[in-house]
Amino acid sequence: MARLGENRWGKSDVRVSKIHRSESGDDFLDLTVQLLLQGDVEAAHVLGDNRGVLPTDTMKNTVYGLAQEHLTRDLEAFAAVLCDHFLERDGITTADVSVSERIWDRVGPSSFIDGGSGRRLARVAVATTDGATAGVWAGVDGMVVLKTTGSAFSGFPRDEFTVLPETEERILATSVKAVWRYSVTPANTTATWEKARQSMIDSFFSEHSASVQHQGWMMAEALLGTVEEIEEVEFRLPNQHHLNYDLSRFGMEDQGVVFQPVSEPYGDIGFTVTR
Amino acid sequence: MARLGENRWGKSDVRVSKIHRSESGDDFLDLTVQLLLQGDVEAAHVLGDNRGVLPTDTMKNTVYGLAQEHLTRDLEAFAAVLCDHFLERDGITTADVSVSERIWDRVGPSSFIDGGSGRRLARVAVATTDGATAGVWAGVDGMVVLKTTGSAFSGFPRDEFTVLPETEERILATSVKAVWRYSVTPANTTATWEKARQSMIDSFFSEHSASVQHQGWMMAEALLGTVEEIEEVEFRLPNQHHLNYDLSRFGMEDQGVVFQPVSEPYGDIGFTVTR
Amino acid sequence: MARLGENRWGKSDVRVSKIHRSESGDDFLDLTVQLLLQGDVEAAHVLGDNRGVLPTDTMKNTVYGLAQEHLTRDLEAFAAVLCDHFLERDGITTADVSVSERIWDRVGPSSFIDGGSGRRLARVAVATTDGATAGVWAGVDGMVVLKTTGSAFSGFPRDEFTVLPETEERILATSVKAVWRYSVTPANTTATWEKARQSMIDSFFSEHSASVQHQGWMMAEALLGTVEEIEEVEFRLPNQHHLNYDLSRFGMEDQGVVFQPVSEPYGDIGFTVTR
Amino acid sequence: MARLGENRWGKSDVRVSKIHRSESGDDFLDLTVQLLLQGDVEAAHVLGDNRGVLPTDTMKNTVYGLAQEHLTRDLEAFAAVLCDHFLERDGITTADVSVSERIWDRVGPSSFIDGGSGRRLARVAVATTDGATAGVWAGVDGMVVLKTTGSAFSGFPRDEFTVLPETEERILATSVKAVWRYSVTPANTTATWEKARQSMIDSFFSEHSASVQHQGWMMAEALLGTVEEIEEVEFRLPNQHHLNYDLSRFGMEDQGVVFQPVSEPYGDIGFTVTR
Repeated sequence: MARLGENRWGKSDVRVSKIHRSESGDDFLDLTVQLLLQGDVEAAHVLGDNRGVLPTDTMKNTVYGLAQEHLTRDLEAFAAVLCDHFLERDGITTADVSVSERIWDRVGPSSFIDGGSGRRLARVAVATTDGATAGVWAGVDGMVVLKTTGSAFSGFPRDEFTVLPETEERILATSVKAVWRYSVTPANTTATWEKARQSMIDSFFSEHSASVQHQGWMMAEALLGTVEEIEEVEFRLPNQHHLNYDLSRFGMEDQGVVFQPVSEPYGDIGFTVTR
Repeated sequence: MARLGENRWGKSDVRVSKIHRSESGDDFLDLTVQLLLQGDVEAAHVLGDNRGVLPTDTMKNTVYGLAQEHLTRDLEAFAAVLCDHFLERDGITTADVSVSERIWDRVGPSSFIDGGSGRRLARVAVATTDGATAGVWAGVDGMVVLKTTGSAFSGFPRDEFTVLPETEERILATSVKAVWRYSVTPANTTATWEKARQSMIDSFFSEHSASVQHQGWMMAEALLGTVEEIEEVEFRLPNQHHLNYDLSRFGMEDQGVVFQPVSEPYGDIGFTVTR
Repeated sequence: MARLGENRWGKSDVRVSKIHRSESGDDFLDLTVQLLLQGDVEAAHVLGDNRGVLPTDTMKNTVYGLAQEHLTRDLEAFAAVLCDHFLERDGITTADVSVSERIWDRVGPSSFIDGGSGRRLARVAVATTDGATAGVWAGVDGMVVLKTTGSAFSGFPRDEFTVLPETEERILATSVKAVWRYSVTPANTTATWEKARQSMIDSFFSEHSASVQHQGWMMAEALLGTVEEIEEVEFRLPNQHHLNYDLSRFGMEDQGVVFQPVSEPYGDIGFTVTR
Repeated sequence: MARLGENRWGKSDVRVSKIHRSESGDDFLDLTVQLLLQGDVEAAHVLGDNRGVLPTDTMKNTVYGLAQEHLTRDLEAFAAVLCDHFLERDGITTADVSVSERIWDRVGPSSFIDGGSGRRLARVAVATTDGATAGVWAGVDGMVVLKTTGSAFSGFPRDEFTVLPETEERILATSVKAVWRYSVTPANTTATWEKARQSMIDSFFSEHSASVQHQGWMMAEALLGTVEEIEEVEFRLPNQHHLNYDLSRFGMEDQGVVFQPVSEPYGDIGFTVTR
């Protein structure tokens, strides 16, 4: 005879982010949560009786629902609120909540960089034959920047498949890949690279943008304005979407501070700017 | 002066699946789509004027909206339908649609296995000290199974955060990890492993389930009933969700055959069954 | 005061493959092994005294050393041999060995396919402007093929950095990406794709090759010879190296059947063939 | 007739690291290199004649061989040296070298942190039943630290499979996962977490260690000595090996500054320390 032993159910990889706006600037939290429950669910396993099985979709929604009021930098306190919430329900005997925080460096009132993820790129191609593509390139890859203000997207065309609302204020996050070509190799490639990288960061955080394209264009202008040896730059700006999570479905007032970061699909923007 | 060169925008990693139901059994398509457009968007880059920028969210929705009528095994035809749709719009000059199909082996009227992803596991622990955990285990990891009928989820409790509809028929897909412990090591571990694996597959595809837990329990029962040397099995059954994509938002009749596979978050079910 | 609790050390992701050659054809095993030991190593933690710490490098070598004689499809037996070997040493109290087998489908005497990993590709680009790149493409991605005979690499140039021995017989494994362009879209794209894919597989397993380039060229020839609608194909053939593991360092006779699969770096071969 | 079009061959994911030792402290470079050549290799494709095919293994070796003298922070200069080297050979017409640098923050004379990769962990489990495991945990995951001095590994036992040389000085790099349990939840969990994290970093960089175990033990002692609310900590310290690359095979003097970072296999060290 088969006998049920230890068991648990839950939701993994629940991604939630939250802005704490304040006079002195915004704070930003970016979490991945795992929820695991144990309880009286033998009938669910053996008989298919789901009366004790809180859906994992509900568990996920609970994270967003409780985040608006209860999520602060005290991650343990938020995890405890979630545990207590689930344990109020009859038949739940254990709640186990794990939180993993992606750490953003705050570099301005509403400006954040995912510190260590960026890489420096260099490329040289040399050819002995006519017509072949040769050159010297440098760049950044995986430079993740995020801002909690200063980004809009509106005035776009609409058709029967358009449901996206217009917005004058959204989270904008992207993992910048920019590869530029030098007309003349700079004397100090490292110092030049640092200056180039900083010019893009400064532009991203200081310029209000109407779209990813617009934001990228201004970064390209800053780059070309800063480093005269650059003759062309190719940008790839995948959008790291942070979707508004609609809390009004739960009968709550939605304050617009709780978001769902999503990995796929993603907006995929690329362009080249030449001098 | 900066000048815009080649450019494109679009949506990557758009995941769409579709069931083709027929008398002789279901067919199942599982695609990842990339959409890239080019057009007259210099004003968008330079001036932030979005009048020519079809939102990538709309592009994504279009995939689902057109999939219901137009998506068949002729992937190139579907890609061409998408291209033509986007090119009808003024100001779009190039549409480039790439499709990558995850291939499922159809092993029954509504039964599919992701052929090569599974691994065989073996583990032996030996200890010289009393009380230490020793034993022989075998198992499968990454055995991905999917069925287009024979799975329900209803009768679950509801609270203020529950919006999940009850369903008597859904796609069920999971990547099975099952590790069992032998009381006696079988004479032929390979033949035993194959018999064990097949018993779980047969159970998954033949038994109607009320939940992932229920489905897993029946697999465990089949396993224990098939291989007498197994004394205990631990299951991990992450749900590979295929969400209904709501086409009624586009003024269409939703026929319930177009789905959005999502990687995160995922339902996370685990339990142990002992003899 | 600090006190040492449970502890273990070992090596993870040890990859070993082995050919079993026989009259009726070869068998091929491809494993990833994790080794964990426990024992009397408090002095190592607290005092830095390593006399009880068998190096994890030695543990890794042991896998290759014992694989030649003891590794068969009875994975549990091999794991037990490893456990027993480590427990013969004084001061080791527990040995825990886990094996995960990547499953290859044997499709000929020395021919293997990693069944489920391949994807079907389709791409359509349409343009309204002159000079733009438009077309219809199809292809495969991640089609992993391996053969245990019929591949050589010799006669290459040597310089001061060349230590690679010449070989007339080696394992050849690659993850094929091939994207072809149709001059005319076939009436039945799915049947054409299957025929195209099969022509490459048949070529890979039937043709003796002198290099990856040579192997790929013959696959391209087969493809173009099979599907007349194809006007051009682009191949990418990353080499999945299986390095000979030198057992003579351990005072053993090396029989040439034990290999180390390596993920990085990898040979990276690409070319285009046109009709 | 088939005709060879554009083609290239090379080696991807070549990982090389280098220490620049100086009076004022060490610098550390960690690169992933891709090498692609073009040339007169039609005979190799069509006829299997390899006389023009410089082996990709040789290309890889060249990176290490030239790194000792030529690799500095001027990545473009190193890429150009590689290009020029390959183009000296008859029959090579294009060399294309791309470099991607993983960026380490230098935090001391021989101390480096992979800045942005770490995550903060928090976990709370609450149970209503007796005997169930409840508690509050916090921790770090993916905190990657590296030092170029202050780490030895010697005095370990040797057997027939031991070829590892003893060393009094090696690169030590590990991705720290440490999860600690609080006996009492601190008043300020964020400040406590920062203090805890810093204590481990300070210990890692200031204490000379005889093994990973020894290094970890000292980190645990520092942690327990710094935060009195911690009653137990579990460490997982996967070794990020940087292997000496033997340049003497190329007839060169090996100065011991060029290394090969390897992802798999890796030493896998874990233990628990309680108060």
